[in-house]
Amino acid sequence: MNTFAAARAALRPLDAVAVAAAEERQARLTKPRGSLGRLEALGARLAGIAGVCPPPAPTPAAVAVFAGDHGVHRHGVSPWPQEVTAQMVANFAAGGAAINAIASAAGASVTVVDVGVAGDLGGIDGVVDRKVRASTGDLVDEPAMTAEEATAALDAGAAVAADLVAGGARLLVTGDMGIANTTPSAALVAALTGRAPADVTGLGTGIDDATWRHKVDVVERALARHGDDREPLGVLASLGGLEHAALVGFIVGGAAAGVPVVVDGVIAGSALLVAARLEPTVVDRCIAGHRSVEPGASVVLADLGLTPLLDLELRLGEGTGAALAVPVVQAAAAVLREMATFDSAGVADKDG
Amino acid sequence: MNTFAAARAALRPLDAVAVAAAEERQARLTKPRGSLGRLEALGARLAGIAGVCPPPAPTPAAVAVFAGDHGVHRHGVSPWPQEVTAQMVANFAAGGAAINAIASAAGASVTVVDVGVAGDLGGIDGVVDRKVRASTGDLVDEPAMTAEEATAALDAGAAVAADLVAGGARLLVTGDMGIANTTPSAALVAALTGRAPADVTGLGTGIDDATWRHKVDVVERALARHGDDREPLGVLASLGGLEHAALVGFIVGGAAAGVPVVVDGVIAGSALLVAARLEPTVVDRCIAGHRSVEPGASVVLADLGLTPLLDLELRLGEGTGAALAVPVVQAAAAVLREMATFDSAGVADKDG
Repeated sequence: MNTFAAARAALRPLDAVAVAAAEERQARLTKPRGSLGRLEALGARLAGIAGVCPPPAPTPAAVAVFAGDHGVHRHGVSPWPQEVTAQMVANFAAGGAAINAIASAAGASVTVVDVGVAGDLGGIDGVVDRKVRASTGDLVDEPAMTAEEATAALDAGAAVAADLVAGGARLLVTGDMGIANTTPSAALVAALTGRAPADVTGLGTGIDDATWRHKVDVVERALARHGDDREPLGVLASLGGLEHAALVGFIVGGAAAGVPVVVDGVIAGSALLVAARLEPTVVDRCIAGHRSVEPGASVVLADLGLTPLLDLELRLGEGTGAALAVPVVQAAAAVLREMATFDSAGVADKDG
Repeated sequence: MNTFAAARAALRPLDAVAVAAAEERQARLTKPRGSLGRLEALGARLAGIAGVCPPPAPTPAAVAVFAGDHGVHRHGVSPWPQEVTAQMVANFAAGGAAINAIASAAGASVTVVDVGVAGDLGGIDGVVDRKVRASTGDLVDEPAMTAEEATAALDAGAAVAADLVAGGARLLVTGDMGIANTTPSAALVAALTGRAPADVTGLGTGIDDATWRHKVDVVERALARHGDDREPLGVLASLGGLEHAALVGFIVGGAAAGVPVVVDGVIAGSALLVAARLEPTVVDRCIAGHRSVEPGASVVLADLGLTPLLDLELRLGEGTGAALAVPVVQAAAAVLREMATFDSAGVADKDG
């Protein structure tokens, strides 16, 4: 079965009846109307995603970190050696990375998936092997992936989402690892929004101004090589990364399974943009967890009409910002699930 | 023993050695330097509060909701009947309020403390009875409390903090309940910052423009009645509420016990302002959890140099915004406690 295609075909709009029921319920809970601010709209969205009010508890949460390498690394767009991708995958598997600490604090699991790391990771326990190829091609000179490779990565991501939901996960969180992966992210965002590369290219994990100008030039050359085609999956294969493609599959797979997907950062954001250009309804099933410092992330959020829950100035990736937002999502559901109404609690309503 | 005075005498500055050790450790963890944004400074603060790096896990967290009524309610500054304070205390004790749902989602306990509710709550199980008097006086015409009553409420708050820490709490969260309590909060903030009442008076749980202008007038009359004395405890007794006084004691008690205190909203914010005017060092031991919609809350945060972790447009009180921030605080500690270093994980450092 083509897992991504099946998930895509299963997508549905939010359940408007459940959204309306949540909004009506919020007005009867023992609090002034609207006083829980953004938690109220978030709770209604959770009800619409689940198709029932109150929504089920979005617990447990599961982070999937998709890892891949990038041919564009050879152009010197990152100060980090490419080997760090594999080293960090080992660090994730051993529980020593930021996403491990932050997910653990939020009670979320971490699944590490190799979709495209350069070199052999066979010796690392705890890494899901979905490798499509070892690193993408150099997107300045050639398409990053073939259409078949992109499809394989889309399927890998959709399968991971389905597996996690089958295993009990009720909230999915996007994570990513890949040295140089802010460069293909910028290329995707520029291609799919029409914004100039300089507007969507950031400092990544930390580069100087000269390297930034070079990075913008690399993105411009990649876009020129790619040409005018704006078909989303064609853009993804040409300019994206294997982890980007897997994240598109993961987001669509989670959305199709009726589970909210928390998204953070420019890598997952650019993947969500691809998914949204294919299937706009998927956006309503995603929650923007955190506003990354990367400019491309904010361009995506504005394009899709999403406002992130958190703004804590993170620029790490791995899914850290999204994982930090998990407890907020769980609190929004708890409000609808657990609070008493004015009637049930015997509290006088000012408008009652 | 005068508990508040003892706590005040036990206050110490942050441990600079532990702060420096945390900053040095952040630079060795497997992430680009600074990439965890505000979590890094928060982690260093936690180390400084605890006096050790890495800091202990700020778990479990405990919310204390201090409840009181207000003589100023008679002026029509709130659309809610005064009885709602007692009804909501019963709702807290039964687990049906927003703070119960949000604290539960964050794994935090909720302790409800009556320091000044009008009427007899003796019949409600699970409410800590620390009632000083049944409602404050009407601060337009008379001091809200006597100095002795304020001291009793300060002691009650400090005792609750000490009891929670003795019972194992490692993170304290301020909560409050009291119909009309944004009015004394505005009076405290205006008196202690010199800002005009119109700048620090908000819409509370929801009033119209005419009621807002009346509320500003009430605050102005209270300030005129109070006069020029700016001694913090004198201002507190004259213009505050019993829950405000208890929160001053709770904040100072938590700070003295070496436990971080998460603060949210204009009620706890105005209490923190009183505490800070008495003992400036207490501010470093507090964490601003959330930016309330109430303008007085932002005035306090700016005055004290605090930036809240969250901005989710809540305006409910009860400690809801602070409780939402608990998992972020716990994540900041987890980063320092659980992450591997470049050396220990065998990851190449770009600057190494």
